[in-house]
Amino acid sequence: MKAKKPFQPDWSEEPPAPGSYRSIFKYGDPSGFKHPSGKWYAMLKEEFGLNDRDFAIRQNEGRAPLALERPPRLAEPQMAALAAIVGAENVTADEYARTRHAYGKTSEEMIELSRGVVREIADLVVHPRHKEDVRRIVAYCHAERIPIVVFSGGSSVTLGLRPVKGGITLVVSTHMNRFLELNEENQTARVQPGIFGPAYEKTLNQAPERLRAGRRYTGGHFPQSFEYSTVGGWVLTLGSGQASSYYGDAADLVVSLEMVTPAGDIRTLDYPATATGPKVADLIKGSEGAFGVLVEVTLRVYRHMPANRRHFSFMFPSWPQAVEASREIAQGEFGRPAVYRISDPEETDRGLKLYGMPRLVDRFLQKRGFAPMARCLCLGSVEGDRDYTRLVTRKIRRVARRYGAASLGGYASRKWARTRYSEPYMREDLNDFGITLDTLEAAVNWDRLMALHWGVREYIKERPRTICMTHASHFYPQGTNLYFIFIGRFDDVGEYRRFQAGIIDRIQAHGGSLSHHHGVGRLLAPWIESHLGGTSMDVLRALKGHFDPHEVMNPGGLLGLDLEDRDRRTP
Amino acid sequence: MKAKKPFQPDWSEEPPAPGSYRSIFKYGDPSGFKHPSGKWYAMLKEEFGLNDRDFAIRQNEGRAPLALERPPRLAEPQMAALAAIVGAENVTADEYARTRHAYGKTSEEMIELSRGVVREIADLVVHPRHKEDVRRIVAYCHAERIPIVVFSGGSSVTLGLRPVKGGITLVVSTHMNRFLELNEENQTARVQPGIFGPAYEKTLNQAPERLRAGRRYTGGHFPQSFEYSTVGGWVLTLGSGQASSYYGDAADLVVSLEMVTPAGDIRTLDYPATATGPKVADLIKGSEGAFGVLVEVTLRVYRHMPANRRHFSFMFPSWPQAVEASREIAQGEFGRPAVYRISDPEETDRGLKLYGMPRLVDRFLQKRGFAPMARCLCLGSVEGDRDYTRLVTRKIRRVARRYGAASLGGYASRKWARTRYSEPYMREDLNDFGITLDTLEAAVNWDRLMALHWGVREYIKERPRTICMTHASHFYPQGTNLYFIFIGRFDDVGEYRRFQAGIIDRIQAHGGSLSHHHGVGRLLAPWIESHLGGTSMDVLRALKGHFDPHEVMNPGGLLGLDLEDRDRRTP
Repeated sequence: MKAKKPFQPDWSEEPPAPGSYRSIFKYGDPSGFKHPSGKWYAMLKEEFGLNDRDFAIRQNEGRAPLALERPPRLAEPQMAALAAIVGAENVTADEYARTRHAYGKTSEEMIELSRGVVREIADLVVHPRHKEDVRRIVAYCHAERIPIVVFSGGSSVTLGLRPVKGGITLVVSTHMNRFLELNEENQTARVQPGIFGPAYEKTLNQAPERLRAGRRYTGGHFPQSFEYSTVGGWVLTLGSGQASSYYGDAADLVVSLEMVTPAGDIRTLDYPATATGPKVADLIKGSEGAFGVLVEVTLRVYRHMPANRRHFSFMFPSWPQAVEASREIAQGEFGRPAVYRISDPEETDRGLKLYGMPRLVDRFLQKRGFAPMARCLCLGSVEGDRDYTRLVTRKIRRVARRYGAASLGGYASRKWARTRYSEPYMREDLNDFGITLDTLEAAVNWDRLMALHWGVREYIKERPRTICMTHASHFYPQGTNLYFIFIGRFDDVGEYRRFQAGIIDRIQAHGGSLSHHHGVGRLLAPWIESHLGGTSMDVLRALKGHFDPHEVMNPGGLLGLDLEDRDRRTP
Repeated sequence: MKAKKPFQPDWSEEPPAPGSYRSIFKYGDPSGFKHPSGKWYAMLKEEFGLNDRDFAIRQNEGRAPLALERPPRLAEPQMAALAAIVGAENVTADEYARTRHAYGKTSEEMIELSRGVVREIADLVVHPRHKEDVRRIVAYCHAERIPIVVFSGGSSVTLGLRPVKGGITLVVSTHMNRFLELNEENQTARVQPGIFGPAYEKTLNQAPERLRAGRRYTGGHFPQSFEYSTVGGWVLTLGSGQASSYYGDAADLVVSLEMVTPAGDIRTLDYPATATGPKVADLIKGSEGAFGVLVEVTLRVYRHMPANRRHFSFMFPSWPQAVEASREIAQGEFGRPAVYRISDPEETDRGLKLYGMPRLVDRFLQKRGFAPMARCLCLGSVEGDRDYTRLVTRKIRRVARRYGAASLGGYASRKWARTRYSEPYMREDLNDFGITLDTLEAAVNWDRLMALHWGVREYIKERPRTICMTHASHFYPQGTNLYFIFIGRFDDVGEYRRFQAGIIDRIQAHGGSLSHHHGVGRLLAPWIESHLGGTSMDVLRALKGHFDPHEVMNPGGLLGLDLEDRDRRTP
């Protein structure tokens, strides 16, 4: 007699129909999926007090075709003028295209779209062919007071793409996605901003074949959104890749920029360092489309030597030991790992259960004092020259041991590396059954890390039946980040938003930055004035006034630049 | 019979009299000297066609007491109001103090002062006691339209301290020079801006004794002006230290800043990285006093492990080989040296003659093909963890050999390190005999390095009897800097200025940046608009307008912010 196969929900394997709500909020590849495993499913039922019946039928999938009738509010001559600039084939006024390009990947967008709720959309979608198109569009929109929101990869998790004041959505990834030049002597790459992560990285990796280069290179930037985000987006939102502890954050990778603004074109110089006054390139970084449209970026690239990569993973007995060892590694002056991550006890334990640790290993670890809900997983890899990766790995191992860690070899790190880009797909599956998985993250200095971790967790765990997994994944001598993953069931988007706002309050109250690498967008904008301070915000508003006096560049709350007092959150 | 001792000029050993012109332009310690050696003297005679008689009597020493009668142009009530803020003991209206604080260390300042020529000076010198004083002074001067020039170390080589429009000189190094806090967990130091290099570094090095710290630290910033420059000056002029290839430039060392401006106080956050919009701290860096007064700085510090330091030096057969090896070292991904320098053939040969290389070594090198006026000296040191310094030194040695270098051991590097801060003293001695030694420097990418080196040298060497020694001393994966030292005799300051302007023209024409680490000040201001571009300058002017709408902060040409068209140099 065969054992009955345990029930598994009918996770959707159906690519969303073109034109459907689901096609807008679904992550990444339309036919890409990553379903919760059997263990994940068991955990969800247990945590949320659900049973198989609750997972019998998917709800609010957003399978229907978008039903929306919102005629563009631009005047006919305006639409014609824009079409004349880029060509009729590069403008779209249909509701679907306008909606699709008005959305990023926040939970609230997913929840609403899956229920057929559509917020503000642009009046026209425009696909510029090159920087000259962008110049003419920006000049025209500036003159005509038509708002412009730039859309590139569309992976924003901060409502950065919402055309609150209508106008046009400028899609730079359609045409302006070329790799322009590799300079091997300077180790720089010049690209158009709309180039996606894989195209960029592949060109560099295959530089000998594709560009007749003498070597292979890497961009060193691998955010979780790597496959569906673009170089321009990385720079404008101050992103950070998973190998940032070695290669630096997006801001560090920029050598020079070219931006088209209502106040004229800016092209910064490409020197590795200068003392020629405040650096205009630095204030374009992080501007999230509020100052102008990025049309070219030159980045540092690195020699690609994957054969030298070394993976490591450890189990620490406790969170304080994991944190202290990590600080020692970040401050030890012996070189730095590329990827380096530590998971807190809840993430570690759930991870071990969900992704599998042989029972034998678990028993061994427990015997040696690595107790569940105390022990912490650490994983990572070292890149660079062969002797360097050998040295740094050895030093890391030595520090880890000093702080009581047991080495687990490279397996966990390799496994993580293989699946690292596919996690976001699981959110759709959970959403189909009324469960929301989301994340918030903050930079933090070492001396406030424990308080921030405790403060945010306390808030999240006070809510009944809410999962909270935390890791630190970007390391600097002065601190790191905390990345909070929370999973819960919410009555409606309102309850969800209130809960999320409470987390942000806690992050701010306990010494975290508002954002380490997600950017600000509109989601975090209400907090930004109290976070940065009024005089710093005045500086940003002065820059906004200079670049964009008619407020056409991504207006309506972005970066908190034009928020009314009543829309600001004060602690 | 004893050989007659060869004639040596009577280099001055007399500290300048207090109140004299010389006391203003003399470098560093009033009783500090570094005289040209006998070999230097021989070289000067030979190069400039001079004989012992030309060095018989020192001329234009500026020994006379400052003779100047320039009553302050501030109104009595204004002077009284300023005195009321800081206390009468902290204001001075006498001509000497006003002159002394109006000068930096350029050649043209030395030439003119030694001849009794005094340019613009402030009307009053004010020594604020703390940031509250600064707040009240800035608010008062803003309201009364009184210009403020901030003076800290006084080592500017760009005319950055010249009070072109009068007003007050605010001396922040008198009182605001304290080390405020060491945070060992975050490895940060909070200081007042007027703290000098040695006080800062010593406090960090002796942290266990002075601050009961667990470890010793280093600031990692050692510009040639180290002993007579301050932390605030480093940051505001975008300085770079001799160990920058490892520790980074001054801008990289800043964690957060506090600045008092006419538009209010700015205090930036101290996270190691954030994605919360354009970073206001970044645009304060390099502002050279044009936006406000720095009142506090938090910097990264590093573990101080001098026992692990390893010195190296090499001789390369040629400049191209030295450059290529250095690029390989900067791009090799095996860690980085702290100090790393390569001298071009002229600097190498003069250096060998002037600082002595045993004849035997020279013969050996020549035999092996290291020919004079081709060979290039390379020296440096590696800092950090012990295993790391061993590895990096080994890798550097391997690369150097691959490019044909002969190792000279650590001697040359150690010798350089011992004397590195005293070179500026020699300028006074030369000036006493009508010889001017000065420097200009530029950042450059690898692919333009040879052209820049050639282009600038060609110009300098076209002038009869002019020495030009060049080195690169700050290394990045994308490029380095070129530091040009030129020595010549000039009829008057006008001829000198024209010659200097010609070098700057050449730097710009051949792809160098206007400045790698000296800053812009007023010296390079005429070139800045054509260098950065008009739209970038518009951004800086917009910031200036925001921070300082009445143009009281260091007005009159600084950074080219308020230059008339006719004062701009166009290529």
